[in-house]
Amino acid sequence: MYELGVVYRNIVRAERTAVDQLARLGASTVHEAQGRVGLLKPYMRPVYPGARIAGTAVTVLLHPGDNWMLHVVAEQIMPGDIVVAAVTADCTDGYFGDLLATSFRARGALGLVIDGGCRDVKDLTEMGFPVWSRAISSKGTIKATLGSVNIPVVCAGMSVNPGDAVVADDDGVVVVPAARVREVADAAAGREANEGEKRAKLAAGVLGLDMYKMREPLAKAGLRYVD
Amino acid sequence: MYELGVVYRNIVRAERTAVDQLARLGASTVHEAQGRVGLLKPYMRPVYPGARIAGTAVTVLLHPGDNWMLHVVAEQIMPGDIVVAAVTADCTDGYFGDLLATSFRARGALGLVIDGGCRDVKDLTEMGFPVWSRAISSKGTIKATLGSVNIPVVCAGMSVNPGDAVVADDDGVVVVPAARVREVADAAAGREANEGEKRAKLAAGVLGLDMYKMREPLAKAGLRYVD
Amino acid sequence: MYELGVVYRNIVRAERTAVDQLARLGASTVHEAQGRVGLLKPYMRPVYPGARIAGTAVTVLLHPGDNWMLHVVAEQIMPGDIVVAAVTADCTDGYFGDLLATSFRARGALGLVIDGGCRDVKDLTEMGFPVWSRAISSKGTIKATLGSVNIPVVCAGMSVNPGDAVVADDDGVVVVPAARVREVADAAAGREANEGEKRAKLAAGVLGLDMYKMREPLAKAGLRYVD
Amino acid sequence: MYELGVVYRNIVRAERTAVDQLARLGASTVHEAQGRVGLLKPYMRPVYPGARIAGTAVTVLLHPGDNWMLHVVAEQIMPGDIVVAAVTADCTDGYFGDLLATSFRARGALGLVIDGGCRDVKDLTEMGFPVWSRAISSKGTIKATLGSVNIPVVCAGMSVNPGDAVVADDDGVVVVPAARVREVADAAAGREANEGEKRAKLAAGVLGLDMYKMREPLAKAGLRYVD
Amino acid sequence: MYELGVVYRNIVRAERTAVDQLARLGASTVHEAQGRVGLLKPYMRPVYPGARIAGTAVTVLLHPGDNWMLHVVAEQIMPGDIVVAAVTADCTDGYFGDLLATSFRARGALGLVIDGGCRDVKDLTEMGFPVWSRAISSKGTIKATLGSVNIPVVCAGMSVNPGDAVVADDDGVVVVPAARVREVADAAAGREANEGEKRAKLAAGVLGLDMYKMREPLAKAGLRYVD
Amino acid sequence: MYELGVVYRNIVRAERTAVDQLARLGASTVHEAQGRVGLLKPYMRPVYPGARIAGTAVTVLLHPGDNWMLHVVAEQIMPGDIVVAAVTADCTDGYFGDLLATSFRARGALGLVIDGGCRDVKDLTEMGFPVWSRAISSKGTIKATLGSVNIPVVCAGMSVNPGDAVVADDDGVVVVPAARVREVADAAAGREANEGEKRAKLAAGVLGLDMYKMREPLAKAGLRYVD
Repeated sequence: MYELGVVYRNIVRAERTAVDQLARLGASTVHEAQGRVGLLKPYMRPVYPGARIAGTAVTVLLHPGDNWMLHVVAEQIMPGDIVVAAVTADCTDGYFGDLLATSFRARGALGLVIDGGCRDVKDLTEMGFPVWSRAISSKGTIKATLGSVNIPVVCAGMSVNPGDAVVADDDGVVVVPAARVREVADAAAGREANEGEKRAKLAAGVLGLDMYKMREPLAKAGLRYVD
Repeated sequence: MYELGVVYRNIVRAERTAVDQLARLGASTVHEAQGRVGLLKPYMRPVYPGARIAGTAVTVLLHPGDNWMLHVVAEQIMPGDIVVAAVTADCTDGYFGDLLATSFRARGALGLVIDGGCRDVKDLTEMGFPVWSRAISSKGTIKATLGSVNIPVVCAGMSVNPGDAVVADDDGVVVVPAARVREVADAAAGREANEGEKRAKLAAGVLGLDMYKMREPLAKAGLRYVD
Repeated sequence: MYELGVVYRNIVRAERTAVDQLARLGASTVHEAQGRVGLLKPYMRPVYPGARIAGTAVTVLLHPGDNWMLHVVAEQIMPGDIVVAAVTADCTDGYFGDLLATSFRARGALGLVIDGGCRDVKDLTEMGFPVWSRAISSKGTIKATLGSVNIPVVCAGMSVNPGDAVVADDDGVVVVPAARVREVADAAAGREANEGEKRAKLAAGVLGLDMYKMREPLAKAGLRYVD
Repeated sequence: MYELGVVYRNIVRAERTAVDQLARLGASTVHEAQGRVGLLKPYMRPVYPGARIAGTAVTVLLHPGDNWMLHVVAEQIMPGDIVVAAVTADCTDGYFGDLLATSFRARGALGLVIDGGCRDVKDLTEMGFPVWSRAISSKGTIKATLGSVNIPVVCAGMSVNPGDAVVADDDGVVVVPAARVREVADAAAGREANEGEKRAKLAAGVLGLDMYKMREPLAKAGLRYVD
Repeated sequence: MYELGVVYRNIVRAERTAVDQLARLGASTVHEAQGRVGLLKPYMRPVYPGARIAGTAVTVLLHPGDNWMLHVVAEQIMPGDIVVAAVTADCTDGYFGDLLATSFRARGALGLVIDGGCRDVKDLTEMGFPVWSRAISSKGTIKATLGSVNIPVVCAGMSVNPGDAVVADDDGVVVVPAARVREVADAAAGREANEGEKRAKLAAGVLGLDMYKMREPLAKAGLRYVD
Repeated sequence: MYELGVVYRNIVRAERTAVDQLARLGASTVHEAQGRVGLLKPYMRPVYPGARIAGTAVTVLLHPGDNWMLHVVAEQIMPGDIVVAAVTADCTDGYFGDLLATSFRARGALGLVIDGGCRDVKDLTEMGFPVWSRAISSKGTIKATLGSVNIPVVCAGMSVNPGDAVVADDDGVVVVPAARVREVADAAAGREANEGEKRAKLAAGVLGLDMYKMREPLAKAGLRYVD
């Protein structure tokens, strides 16, 4: 399944301007615009609230309790990247802390998405280096087994290919294939524009029942009102 | 069990002044005052910290991955209500976001309690529209299957009837039957008054062992001290 | 296994100056310095973010849904202690709230670590009395069954002996045996000093691959680079 | 919510012949026939495979770690009943074992559904007394706090009223309100008859696509085939 | 990420003779032989014990609570296939029962792997149609939303491409990419042959310490023996 | 906390005749007789049903995803021992399979209790070598990091010392300190004898309410009967 012990140095990254557009829109809008696919499992949570980033995926495959490859992936980071780390089996150990965050940031990384644990939460919060993880844990890791860098991985239930766009905020983490980023960004922007108008109507007391013309289909489906 | 496809428009809401009194006291005090019943499962957490509300329940039953009935329930909201949403099977999809929050607020809702997922956390936080949910998830939902509005539901392990009082804060969510609200509010207020005095004693160094006269029953139960 | 119905009054506490040193270093650094052991399960989370404490353990064994012994343990608290509460079976009830926190603080406790639930989160946050727990729950408890105080307990998967040092912050909770506190504090301090230098290098763009001399062992393990 | 400390002696049980009919049909068929409602959470599992029962609910509310009321409910059992036990908070302790099973059987109970733990699995298997529970645990319980018997309870996420029909087998546990048992039994029987014919067609190689005439709605929904 | 609303009819299936060889060896041996990758999460369990199958994957993507596409995938099954069903969000509903099993078997399917719920366990056991699922649940599903057939999916944390080999038994489910099946089957067979010899030695009392020559590396790593 | 890299060769094992007596009585009876302590978390389940063993603990501490020390512990097994394996962090990898079982059996081990995963379930079932584990998983492990043998460990939430008695059956796993085995065996035997008589009474229709004289305390606690 996974190719082990290999680092791919040349990857095609999603177009930057489209990725930046995704950052303004956020995970939920992008997820809807893409057709309700691409979301990582909701157990992936930010280690501190309020961050919203979008970047290009540099992927890394780790073994449980082993963070060796996080040092290997650091060298492959380019400005605007987000590191996406998968693990070959569930393990909440703390693979990542403030030292690696310092290194990742020096290379230009915007953040980390890791299907494992993270530590040094206080330092990461002060640095403003955002991490989405499945757990927070002080548990240290070893450096014994090779994984790979920039191969396709499954992270928190979702396939991620190197170069894909990643959008992450308080709602979760969404992946957009590099080839579809422009199209999804445009669809999401349209959706967002559209939402402004809807929001104004709803705030004025118009019901979704009327705005979305749901009364007829609801009646057709058999909805009854009882006084 | 559940009656499907029906909206009850006329419900008897718990008395407002008693409900307002519950809001000042909070979920834990109300829960104790009611005899340690009425608490939703502790997996129900606020999407942002610090909110404390009490209102009257407008209930809605959803199907997994389907938020159609949230639009139907919006029309039944009256000022001071809290929407309580149950789902027929566990599913963490994001049924609710900022557009529905805008609509619910325009109708006078104080907040939402949903045994499913919620999204647009950043917007909800900025709006100050509090939600208690089992998950945060960007996952969008469909509009295909009828549930019901204002029928008795089970939400996060607890029965909730339309019109019941709901108290929610950082400690969780407690339900008080409409018919018992005045009695529980009085008991909780008494309890709270009582707690102020106890707190002062404990702060002064008096032990609960003495204040609650526990030394004798503990000794009777066989407690031994070893130096 | 557990001795029930007994309170040990005389325990040997870890050396204060070494314990204070641990507080400055935090759970993750102490955990590493101790050889990656002593960490409680990562489901133990602070009820509010930002606290960092280190103290000496006063232990208490509770029964599920019964907080009687928390009143018994209060009397055994000395300034600088942290109460460590274990339960004989998993139960998320809210054993601890603001009244007990007031009492514990009056006795000099720095905080509580409990393998169960906690309530009155808003009050605890305002008081600044930190608690690490497995859940937040309004569910009240009874006072019916004897446990013990200052016996060795297993809390969240880790053995804790009375008098051990406990370090807790946003990363989790770590236990250091009383006899090893000085040695671990020194190792942790050395580690921390060392980290400052590493952090500066990494911030300047030096790679961990070079700083830790990993390139050779990685090549030896068979890592391949593909352009 | 829950009325505590009370035993209702007179309950109206669902009609026996209809209940017996449900037993032949099983939980999944009954659940469908009732409109896909009434199912307890799927974490409720039989302690041994192969049992299938249907009976009338005698309900009991327990406190976490306390099985006192199981002795109280025993007296209220009539032949053909199934005891349905709810707990006021999640706790996997082993509330029930072979002694209580002996007593329940002597009173005519067909089995037990308990939203908690069960023990003596080997004995229960040999006796052929079926139990559906959320856990298997040797953990003993105390007898200290009153619950109630034959009040409406929420068991594993579903409301159960005394006298309701309960159907349990390897697929799970379904509740049918006493007033609807005849109607649901008839609908389920019709469904079952219908299934025999469908099964034969499908076994002969007819596709559900054709048998259920799905090709047109699928095409209308936009399904594309690619060679 | 996922392409929705499409059925790929022509897929390249892994070579039959190699797949058959995998069936004899079982999931754990194949997993090791492949380099410890390709395993689905261990929450995937057989609905009855004792089955061991290997076949070629026909994949299907479902929406939560919707089994419409299982009827669509039935038509694409060829003898020797195993259906691998992924869902776009976690939902334990019972998507599959004895009617679909009858249809799948008539088309030549060997079994089903589904990252959701399954029902009619008694019937499936009697039929001998094996299913690996994340849950058992009577909960019925609807037919409202299009997914896809024979696209790459992520099932229980692992990527599965149409045509890949799937090996499933009491230990779990392993996927082998179609292109590697011959190589992995040979490696697994070699491994198995090798294991027979090892087993004999170990049964005769030879220690793994000696057989695998571990004493030296253990000593080198610092292992100490204390009498 | 844990001492790493050490193997204690000389341990004091619990008295054999008392241990054998525990095997006849089973986990639940022993747990009660010991005062309701000593039970491992109920997530520890047998990999096949029906086994009941009691033996003396040989303990081993593993690292997540690393089974090296299982080979080291094999040499320390004496006839009548049960290996008790703890892991320094939660990880469900399959540390143990049929080869190690063959070796352990050759050394005289009665079974394994492991707070991790196990594989080769079919072979273990055929061999009749019982294992209690937290998961079943094909995931292989590495041999890179030293743990220890015959140190005190925490396994599934319970302290286990080398030489302690371990009782395991379908109800779970209970530990009895070596020094208390005779006393607990006698208490359990007394309890068991006692249970035979109770069982006969209950089977004859006598209620626990009468047999245990509960009516008075229940009435005193306020229990009301309503007709």
